[in-house]
Amino acid sequence: MKGVILAIHPRARVVDLTHDIAPQDVTAAALLLRSAVRFFARGTVHLAVVDPGVGSTRRALVVVTRDALLVGPDNGLLQPAADALGRHAAYAIDVERLVKRKLLRAPISRTFHGRDVFAPVAAHLAKGLRPSAIGPAVEQMATLALPVGRVTPGGVEGAVIHIDHFGNCITNVTEAELGRFSGARLSVSLAGVTIRGIASAYSDAAEGAPLAIVNSWEHLEIAVRGGSAARQLGVERGARVHVAPE
Amino acid sequence: MKGVILAIHPRARVVDLTHDIAPQDVTAAALLLRSAVRFFARGTVHLAVVDPGVGSTRRALVVVTRDALLVGPDNGLLQPAADALGRHAAYAIDVERLVKRKLLRAPISRTFHGRDVFAPVAAHLAKGLRPSAIGPAVEQMATLALPVGRVTPGGVEGAVIHIDHFGNCITNVTEAELGRFSGARLSVSLAGVTIRGIASAYSDAAEGAPLAIVNSWEHLEIAVRGGSAARQLGVERGARVHVAPE
Amino acid sequence: MKGVILAIHPRARVVDLTHDIAPQDVTAAALLLRSAVRFFARGTVHLAVVDPGVGSTRRALVVVTRDALLVGPDNGLLQPAADALGRHAAYAIDVERLVKRKLLRAPISRTFHGRDVFAPVAAHLAKGLRPSAIGPAVEQMATLALPVGRVTPGGVEGAVIHIDHFGNCITNVTEAELGRFSGARLSVSLAGVTIRGIASAYSDAAEGAPLAIVNSWEHLEIAVRGGSAARQLGVERGARVHVAPE
Repeated sequence: MKGVILAIHPRARVVDLTHDIAPQDVTAAALLLRSAVRFFARGTVHLAVVDPGVGSTRRALVVVTRDALLVGPDNGLLQPAADALGRHAAYAIDVERLVKRKLLRAPISRTFHGRDVFAPVAAHLAKGLRPSAIGPAVEQMATLALPVGRVTPGGVEGAVIHIDHFGNCITNVTEAELGRFSGARLSVSLAGVTIRGIASAYSDAAEGAPLAIVNSWEHLEIAVRGGSAARQLGVERGARVHVAPE
Repeated sequence: MKGVILAIHPRARVVDLTHDIAPQDVTAAALLLRSAVRFFARGTVHLAVVDPGVGSTRRALVVVTRDALLVGPDNGLLQPAADALGRHAAYAIDVERLVKRKLLRAPISRTFHGRDVFAPVAAHLAKGLRPSAIGPAVEQMATLALPVGRVTPGGVEGAVIHIDHFGNCITNVTEAELGRFSGARLSVSLAGVTIRGIASAYSDAAEGAPLAIVNSWEHLEIAVRGGSAARQLGVERGARVHVAPE
Repeated sequence: MKGVILAIHPRARVVDLTHDIAPQDVTAAALLLRSAVRFFARGTVHLAVVDPGVGSTRRALVVVTRDALLVGPDNGLLQPAADALGRHAAYAIDVERLVKRKLLRAPISRTFHGRDVFAPVAAHLAKGLRPSAIGPAVEQMATLALPVGRVTPGGVEGAVIHIDHFGNCITNVTEAELGRFSGARLSVSLAGVTIRGIASAYSDAAEGAPLAIVNSWEHLEIAVRGGSAARQLGVERGARVHVAPE
C-alpha cells in the first residue's frame, strides 16, 4: 500500500496508526480511528482497511469532513470517526471509472483492495483530486452497532471491546457515562473481581493488582499494574463489565 | 537500519514492506518481494534481509533491473524479484573497499549486516552512487528452489508456503497453473477437507466455512471466512494441497 | 504519536526503532536505545516511551547530549544512551507551563503521555525549540540498575536480559568483559548446556545447534542456528549464564 501511495504521490507522508487490531474487528478499529483522527493535522487523508467484505459488493467510500478525508470500506469502520469530525459528504468509489481514467491499475485483486483501490484513491486525494471525482455521492453510509454501555438505575452495564498489546481490557463504557455518577466513588466488576475506585495512574495500584482507569480513548479500561489484565483475570473480548456507585 | 539510511541520505523515503516473515523463511520473503516490487515507483531501491548466513562468506548483492535496484544477501531472496523485473547486472558488495572509502562504518557486526552493510549500501545507491562502484560484477546469483506447483494429469500438486497474519494459507499454486483447466470447476483438497470451486471474494463462503481464492500475489490461497484457516484446519507450512477439476 | 508530531512539524522524519520490547521492560529498551543512538544522524531527537509510571509524579525529561536530544520518562530508560552520547544537561518537562504556552494540548490523558506529552515535546524540539524552554534544569536523573555481568576469578556470571523476535537470548555480558580473557577459548553455559567457543557467524554452528556470538549491541548472545534458542533450550528472561575460559 505504501509503495502504491508513494508511486502516485512521492511527497506524501505516510504513518501507520496500528497493526494490532484483531482480524475482522471492525468495532475496535472504528473506535481507535475515532479516538485518533483529532490528533492529526488538518487535511490528513485517513485510510483504514478492516474489510471482511473485500471483493464483494460492499461499497468503498470517501468521506469528506471539515478537517480530514476518510477512505475505506462501507462497513461502519469510518462512521464513528466521520461523526466525530462532522461529516459533510460521502462518495462511493467507482472502480471501473477510476480504472478507465488510469487512477487505479487493473487488474484489481480479489483479496487486497487496500493495495488496489483504497491506497491509490487516498494518494490521489492527498495529491489534490476532488472527492467528488471518485464516484457518486452517497446519502447513507453503513453505521456501526457500537456496543455502548447501557445505563441502568444501578450503574452502567458494559463489555470489553478490545484487548491491547499490554493485556489492558478496554470497555465500551465512556468517560461521559461515568460522569453521570459525579461525586460518587465507583466500583468496577469484571470476571468475578471488584475494583474499588477509578485510578488516576497505573501506579496507583500495587504491583500485580488490578485497577480501573479512563484511558486515552476516554473509555474505561481495566489493567493490572506491571502485568496483563487479560491474562491475570482470564478476560476475553466480550466479557461483561458492571460499574456502580459504592 | 532506518537511522543509518537517514544519516546518509536524509531525504530518503523509507517504507517497511513487512515484518511478518517467519525467521529464516527465505522462500516466503522472496515471493512476497516478487509480488510487491512492481507496485513501487520506478527508481526504488528494494532492501531485503532474510539472512541466515549473516557473517559467513555468503555474498551480498546489488542487482540492477530496468526499474529498480535490489539489495540483499545472495541466498535466493532477490532472485524471483530480479527475474520478474528483468535483471540487467549484479554486483557483489566489497565490504573492505567500502569501509576504506568510508561508505560503510567499521566495525561490521557479526549478526546485523542489515544495519552495517545493506542499509548503508541502499542509502548510497538511493543517493546516486553507481551500482558498479559497489564491487565486482557477478555473473551467477544464487537461485531459489521455489516449491512450484507440479502439474499432473489429474490436477496440480502443491504445498502451503506461507501463513499470513490472518491465518490464510498461501500455496505455491499460481493463477497461471489454475488457468490450464480453463472452464472446468476446480476442487481444492487440503488437510482432509475438499473445497468446491474457487471463490471470487472471501464473503462467497458462509461465516466460518473454508474457501479457496486467488490472492494478491496471484497464488491460490485457502482461507476461512471470518476466521483462521491455519488454526481451524490445523494446517502448517508445508502442508500438501491438491487441485483438480471436479 | 506520529500524527501529533507531524501536525506540529510536518517535515519531521519519524522512524520506529522497535515495537518488540516486552511490556514494562525498561532495561531491554534502555540497552537497545543505547546501542542504536550512535547510528542516527547528528541532531536526531530520540523519543522513547516505556513508562510504567505514566500519570504518576515520575518526571518527564529532555536530555541534551553533544549530538542528539533524548525525550522520555525519568525512570532510567534514557540514562545508558545519555551516558554513551555524553550528557550535557537535562530538563524536566513542565507540563502545566507547556499547556499554557499551547505547546501541549489539554487535557493530558492519564495513560498515554507518549501522545500527549512526549511526542509534542519531541516535535517542538525537532522544530527548533530550545531544550531549556521545556522546564527546570535537572541535576540528577534516575539511573538504571543495569544487570551487568559480574567478573569472578573463574569467569563471568551473567543473565539473559532480552529475547528477540528470533528467540535469540541476549545476555548482559558485554564484549568488553569477554575481552578480559584475551586469547583464551571460552565456554558459555546456560540452561544445562555448554557451548564451546564464541562463533563469528550463526552459520559456524550446525543446523539446529546452539552457539554463542557477540551481537550487534556488542553483548554476548546465545542463538540456535536456524531455530529459536529460547524455545529449544527452554530459556526465559533472567536465566543465568556462565562464561569461563576452557
